[in-house]
Amino acid sequence: MNTTHETLFTPEWSRRVAGVARFSSGVRAPFSMAYGSPDPALFPAEAIAAATDRVLADPARVAVALQYGSIQGQPELIALVAEKLEREEGIRVTAQNVVITNGASAAIGLAARSLIDEGDVVLVEAPSFPGALSVLKRTGGELINLPVGPEGIDVAATEELLESLRLRGIHPKILYTIPTFQNPSGLTIPQSARVALLEVARRYNLVIIEDDAYRELYYDAASGPLPPSLYGLDHDGRVIRTSTFSKILSPGMRLGWAVAQPEIIERMLLLKEEGGTSSFSQHVATEYARDGALTRHIAMLVDAYRAKRDAALEALDRYFPPGAQWTRPLGGFFVWVTLPSSIDPQRLAAEAAREGVDYLPGERFFAQPPAEPGTYLRLSYSLLSPEEIDDAIKGLSGVIKTFY
Amino acid sequence: MNTTHETLFTPEWSRRVAGVARFSSGVRAPFSMAYGSPDPALFPAEAIAAATDRVLADPARVAVALQYGSIQGQPELIALVAEKLEREEGIRVTAQNVVITNGASAAIGLAARSLIDEGDVVLVEAPSFPGALSVLKRTGGELINLPVGPEGIDVAATEELLESLRLRGIHPKILYTIPTFQNPSGLTIPQSARVALLEVARRYNLVIIEDDAYRELYYDAASGPLPPSLYGLDHDGRVIRTSTFSKILSPGMRLGWAVAQPEIIERMLLLKEEGGTSSFSQHVATEYARDGALTRHIAMLVDAYRAKRDAALEALDRYFPPGAQWTRPLGGFFVWVTLPSSIDPQRLAAEAAREGVDYLPGERFFAQPPAEPGTYLRLSYSLLSPEEIDDAIKGLSGVIKTFY
Repeated sequence: MNTTHETLFTPEWSRRVAGVARFSSGVRAPFSMAYGSPDPALFPAEAIAAATDRVLADPARVAVALQYGSIQGQPELIALVAEKLEREEGIRVTAQNVVITNGASAAIGLAARSLIDEGDVVLVEAPSFPGALSVLKRTGGELINLPVGPEGIDVAATEELLESLRLRGIHPKILYTIPTFQNPSGLTIPQSARVALLEVARRYNLVIIEDDAYRELYYDAASGPLPPSLYGLDHDGRVIRTSTFSKILSPGMRLGWAVAQPEIIERMLLLKEEGGTSSFSQHVATEYARDGALTRHIAMLVDAYRAKRDAALEALDRYFPPGAQWTRPLGGFFVWVTLPSSIDPQRLAAEAAREGVDYLPGERFFAQPPAEPGTYLRLSYSLLSPEEIDDAIKGLSGVIKTFY
Repeated sequence: MNTTHETLFTPEWSRRVAGVARFSSGVRAPFSMAYGSPDPALFPAEAIAAATDRVLADPARVAVALQYGSIQGQPELIALVAEKLEREEGIRVTAQNVVITNGASAAIGLAARSLIDEGDVVLVEAPSFPGALSVLKRTGGELINLPVGPEGIDVAATEELLESLRLRGIHPKILYTIPTFQNPSGLTIPQSARVALLEVARRYNLVIIEDDAYRELYYDAASGPLPPSLYGLDHDGRVIRTSTFSKILSPGMRLGWAVAQPEIIERMLLLKEEGGTSSFSQHVATEYARDGALTRHIAMLVDAYRAKRDAALEALDRYFPPGAQWTRPLGGFFVWVTLPSSIDPQRLAAEAAREGVDYLPGERFFAQPPAEPGTYLRLSYSLLSPEEIDDAIKGLSGVIKTFY
């Protein structure tokens, strides 16, 4: 498959992709802004096929790639994760700090199940990623909204919340956050707030699950470096960072990882009941990434998704009516839109679907009702071409104006 | 890779395989009879590579094979499982009866977590598969040994056990069994006992988890058909059957499945936190299996593993001393050996490892201490060539005789 920029955004691709998505309204729309799925036109399919051929042509590698593997992960992929962390962020980990998982969702699930007991209080951003919220809830955790401002978690308000909870005898155990290009808000917590958040976590003895699924997709590197991850800033081993190859390679290979203290990794391994993550996917991914191919691929993805992000923000600026507000993500896949609370979210979603535009209404991103009333929308720009994003946001804007 | 019979059992392959296995004693032995791993020389690596190439050459299939997929599984693989059950066993299921999982271990884990609450009593064969025993224990279940005779579960004794438990106010909820080519005993429960077991399960309201990982590897079809699975004989929806592509295709692809009532499948789906089993593996496996390739491959595997089973039984007959007893499996990977209880199992394992023969001592296969004292060994004949099996069992026999 040819993945040069010129051929990325053909209408044929978009129709195929849109045909795959099932929409909340039950109809199929040509413009899906609903899912955080990467654009399949950007999958390095030919290179993955070639990597598979190389792995399976060598009997010594067949004997491991098609066989049962280590519960913790294939040593080669663990080494790749460790090298990537050191090269890109200067973070040093040993093999004992890493577990390979079935995507980041499994990493979050293992972290949640190994740390949370029935009734434990878990702090989550409001809004946050629904997949994680439901995993955290199923462990028996009680979810409480974190205060979020225009730069992500509001650390001062979080400290007030923790203090008021403490006075009521409530001691939260876990804080789950997506500090970088947050899903769904698109916000990134600045470095100073990250340092302050870690200090608060230390004082209130919180373990932090840092979901870092989108970090590599940073579109504004020209204006300065990204803040370090919470894991990178942490000095007392209280951060579990989860990440994934889903956004930078392929979700279908189901490869994610977590880095944490060896004691936490050990607890996660005990719950990893599936006999280890696919050796086949791990060996193909490692072979694919050899000689810098993954690094070059990520650079291409950053250019392609930046064009989509730019198209989304330009269309929002051009078409959206007064009274609508939205975030300006520096990376990742999502814009979070706030509309006047007088607009009924269910009716808006239904009308938009009839116009052929699909997105996720905001309500499912909240563990508790949000502090600020509003009608919220998550728009994902990952699947569509820049031209389609313009059309979709123009169409959605037309629907919104009928509610004014 | 060439997988004709002539090239299957080269010493080079065996050395590679043995080199991968780490032994309990910490030394590396040339003859591993420890693990239930399929022989990598029998993996259809070339055909899997070709199937991968075909899937990834078609943009429409790339868009699903490398993308997020359904939590339940890819429709094509669910259809393959349904067709396989109908063609091979006359069992009809709908898509609502099936979930694709990360190997059979994940299916057992999902079944266990969705059905067992803290303190529930779970009946397990003595001996049984340690991977399942630890998953069942981690759910908080209390494991109780089932009585096992020369043909697997002793149903009359099981009924007595259930009645005596009932009189003490104990009502077991789950019965976990591997009725066909059991791991580790190699035993197969006859049809009449299966029917009787289901009747007992009905009377005592037990849900049965039927682990059917080895069914396809039946070596004595010439002497008559296999008994139907418990799932196939069940009339009241109390059986969850778990199975796998690990033994018939490749463990590294991590593909298993469960069939059960839709209500149970729904509960399992709620716990499937990893964002769905690998679409990549599922599409490659489905493409590989097209046009009967999997059926032909299984026929080849049956011939190859039968030769290994025959070599193991012939060597046991030839070399093992009086006082040793062993099972005669009709399929699967394992022979279960009982030695006089005067032989110390730890010392025997250590001496055998020094002689270069590795196996799993019996103790880890029991949830509770066994009813009958004895020194138990599980010998797996899946990895070695027939000649190596002969050598290994000869060597082991020599070690055993030094304990007499």
